[in-house]
Amino acid sequence: MNNGKKKIFTIFGGTGDLTYRKLIPAFYNLRALDKLSEDFELVIIGRREYTKDAYMELVRPWVTQFSRLPFKEETFNELTSHITYLQMDFMKLDQYEILNKFYNKFPSNQQRLYYLAVAPEFFSVISNHLKEAKMVENDHIHQVMIEKPFGHNIESAMALHEDLAKAFGSDDIYRIDHYLGKEMIQNILSIRFNNALFEGIWNYEQIDNIQISALETVGVENRGNYYDHTGALKDMVQNHLFQVLSIVAMDKPKSFSAEDIQSEQVKVLDSLRFLSEDEVSSHMVLGQYGGGYLSDHCVRAYREEENVDPNSTTETYVSLKLQLDHPRWTGVPMYLRTGKRCAKRSTEVVIQFKSALGQKPNLLIIRIYPDEGVYLRFNAKKAGSTQEVVPVFMDFCQSCVYENRINTPEAYERLIEAALNEDRSLFTSWDQVLSSWRYIDHLEALREKVNLPVYPYVAGKNGPAASDYLLEASGHYWIEEESESV
Amino acid sequence: MNNGKKKIFTIFGGTGDLTYRKLIPAFYNLRALDKLSEDFELVIIGRREYTKDAYMELVRPWVTQFSRLPFKEETFNELTSHITYLQMDFMKLDQYEILNKFYNKFPSNQQRLYYLAVAPEFFSVISNHLKEAKMVENDHIHQVMIEKPFGHNIESAMALHEDLAKAFGSDDIYRIDHYLGKEMIQNILSIRFNNALFEGIWNYEQIDNIQISALETVGVENRGNYYDHTGALKDMVQNHLFQVLSIVAMDKPKSFSAEDIQSEQVKVLDSLRFLSEDEVSSHMVLGQYGGGYLSDHCVRAYREEENVDPNSTTETYVSLKLQLDHPRWTGVPMYLRTGKRCAKRSTEVVIQFKSALGQKPNLLIIRIYPDEGVYLRFNAKKAGSTQEVVPVFMDFCQSCVYENRINTPEAYERLIEAALNEDRSLFTSWDQVLSSWRYIDHLEALREKVNLPVYPYVAGKNGPAASDYLLEASGHYWIEEESESV
Repeated sequence: MNNGKKKIFTIFGGTGDLTYRKLIPAFYNLRALDKLSEDFELVIIGRREYTKDAYMELVRPWVTQFSRLPFKEETFNELTSHITYLQMDFMKLDQYEILNKFYNKFPSNQQRLYYLAVAPEFFSVISNHLKEAKMVENDHIHQVMIEKPFGHNIESAMALHEDLAKAFGSDDIYRIDHYLGKEMIQNILSIRFNNALFEGIWNYEQIDNIQISALETVGVENRGNYYDHTGALKDMVQNHLFQVLSIVAMDKPKSFSAEDIQSEQVKVLDSLRFLSEDEVSSHMVLGQYGGGYLSDHCVRAYREEENVDPNSTTETYVSLKLQLDHPRWTGVPMYLRTGKRCAKRSTEVVIQFKSALGQKPNLLIIRIYPDEGVYLRFNAKKAGSTQEVVPVFMDFCQSCVYENRINTPEAYERLIEAALNEDRSLFTSWDQVLSSWRYIDHLEALREKVNLPVYPYVAGKNGPAASDYLLEASGHYWIEEESESV
Repeated sequence: MNNGKKKIFTIFGGTGDLTYRKLIPAFYNLRALDKLSEDFELVIIGRREYTKDAYMELVRPWVTQFSRLPFKEETFNELTSHITYLQMDFMKLDQYEILNKFYNKFPSNQQRLYYLAVAPEFFSVISNHLKEAKMVENDHIHQVMIEKPFGHNIESAMALHEDLAKAFGSDDIYRIDHYLGKEMIQNILSIRFNNALFEGIWNYEQIDNIQISALETVGVENRGNYYDHTGALKDMVQNHLFQVLSIVAMDKPKSFSAEDIQSEQVKVLDSLRFLSEDEVSSHMVLGQYGGGYLSDHCVRAYREEENVDPNSTTETYVSLKLQLDHPRWTGVPMYLRTGKRCAKRSTEVVIQFKSALGQKPNLLIIRIYPDEGVYLRFNAKKAGSTQEVVPVFMDFCQSCVYENRINTPEAYERLIEAALNEDRSLFTSWDQVLSSWRYIDHLEALREKVNLPVYPYVAGKNGPAASDYLLEASGHYWIEEESESV
């Protein structure tokens, strides 16, 4: 991991929720596993005035609560010895001298990673200031890490890319899709390409349809302002669901380098068949949650949420029936859906195999979140002298293998480690961003044009009834019961 | 179940181990599940003088210990009310009048099932006496149930068949292979033919080799006299292993009637490629256990067992590499092995799929005994940030579904229920017996001709090293480790 350069990791937005909840606990775990070199530095930038001790006391309860490894005073103290808290206002160019002075305390042979844990409108501000202050030089030495959204359409994504690429090399922009840090997403590739059995059946001859779901029970929470201008299509489909789709549907890459994998993923996104105006209403369903009950709690409607327009037509749910123009997937619908305030919290991929008349179809279910594992549903004789045939599960539970998931690194821990190692394979390539925006912009434009309805749905349901009709039209249905029965 | 006739079940050998250990507990369970009609009669024939009460007190502890359902006084009393103990010597024709008198107490509209729980040399004696006493008439009303051995070669099997068929209709000979009563053996058919996914991969294109193992840790126990004249090939391969092989390898039957299933099974046995003298030593390995340690117990060698010739060359272990002349199985070796005093007690089928270079092969493992279930081994990424690929299991444990297997009927319970219902599908057909003896006789003749060595193996090993070489010659190896790791 040590390539001779001193590694300095700088977090902008050091007093924000993401830093407390995800980044510091991730560093704690990396420290506990001895994955940070001795001379590693973590610089936390915040506007507020804190002594280092005060800051560490502030983060201590977050580490206790959110780190996957048990809290040890000794490890926490070791982590503390790597941390510096710097008070500065990143909006002001002249304040960057504070940060620069800190860097200059060390020999100049440095690799610096900047994590912009700030609202997206500040991405360009910070990278422009770093450039102007001559702290970065597009010299392939320093990297920037940012999380979605990468723009809100293809134009804004290109503008953001241009700003970042001016400061950093375009290869040195690490775009985080935290789905890529998830254990089972990584595992889909492994499973697909290390098993002759699965490779042989991964095509239209054996597969009937594929369903990718990312359902949440939470509502919009405190993100009303952002979400009401975004919606599920841009917030979830453009990044996470397309990421999963491209991994599930891609051809075998030439090698398992980041470039070769990403290039195959882009081919999948580029093969998404565009819809006509006539097709859109039978291929895309939008929904917005109303009030309802979830786990016996009364929850309010989307339009009653804070910072949401009371007449909002923003979708909190979307389901799609997509087709890839790819010989492997001839006639295999790819169903995608995501929504808030649904009946269950579950991210999973269902591979439904073709079946003979009267047979319950064989299913391969890849659970991504919150459970991690692979399940195969097949038909077997019911135990006992009966000849009744019932569906049963073979299961492999990745998250059960180790108690309390202590051995499954959280996404951010994995992503930070990858970034420190300059491993780009866990980040989204610029081509992926471009290709997915191209398709999402197409859907957004169609939706405007035909004035696609946004159906209300009762909180606690997996979307509006129209989402079921979307599949029924092709003789399919959302595979739900399995999630509850295992 | 009640077809209007009174059902009378007669056990010859009512004071033997099989009756105590298997048959009476099976009837207890059938009674507990209300599967015996009200006017059902169970007649126990023994040479010793017991009152019914004394007999029931004798069997009580066996029921307590061996019935799968919990012992209840009430159920035991109900069972008792169906039982009659008759003292008679079945070797003497005149004594059959005792039994006949009993039958004549009831209206003549009877269906009688005779279970011959006696040594095989008495099968013909009893059926001849029943015939001579005019108690059976080859009238398709009465059935006889016998357990292996069905002869000791094709001639003796034919002679036995002739004797039985004289007394009973040849369709009314229920030949028990208790393997056929096992839950997972029944389930192999269900799984194979109710899942498009498995049907599609069940052939030489996807399957590399098939391994069928029936290993025991026990030695010859008190069966030295019988076993030393029989050996593993006749005692296990001719019946149980060929039964499993034919179910695993058969084509889809026209229907799931007993006749259609058995007819497909016979086709498999008939397609076994005969070996030449040159081939036999590279296709069959014989072994005999020496002394050794098993679970820290010192155990004696086969030749030191009671009633075994101290110079015996009887095999207690055999492994075979067989080939089916069947388009579905072109080039797929079928490996069979069975042995006593092995490292583990395990009956299972391993389907090894073809794999790419460097990949651990995918395995479908069907556990038959003592665990019941289906396991799929595939390769997945090891949990954590590593990219290491390791074999993992998806498993479906049939015997785990219900606590203590309370819902999985024991083989004999299932077989008796099937016989009472005149369901022949759980019994071995005469054609199967003929076809399997034809092949076993062929192997026995070759073995004599080339004087095939019987290798000693240390008790606690899964056979002699030569058995491993048998597979290594084709680049294969016995799949062992899985059994222990799950």
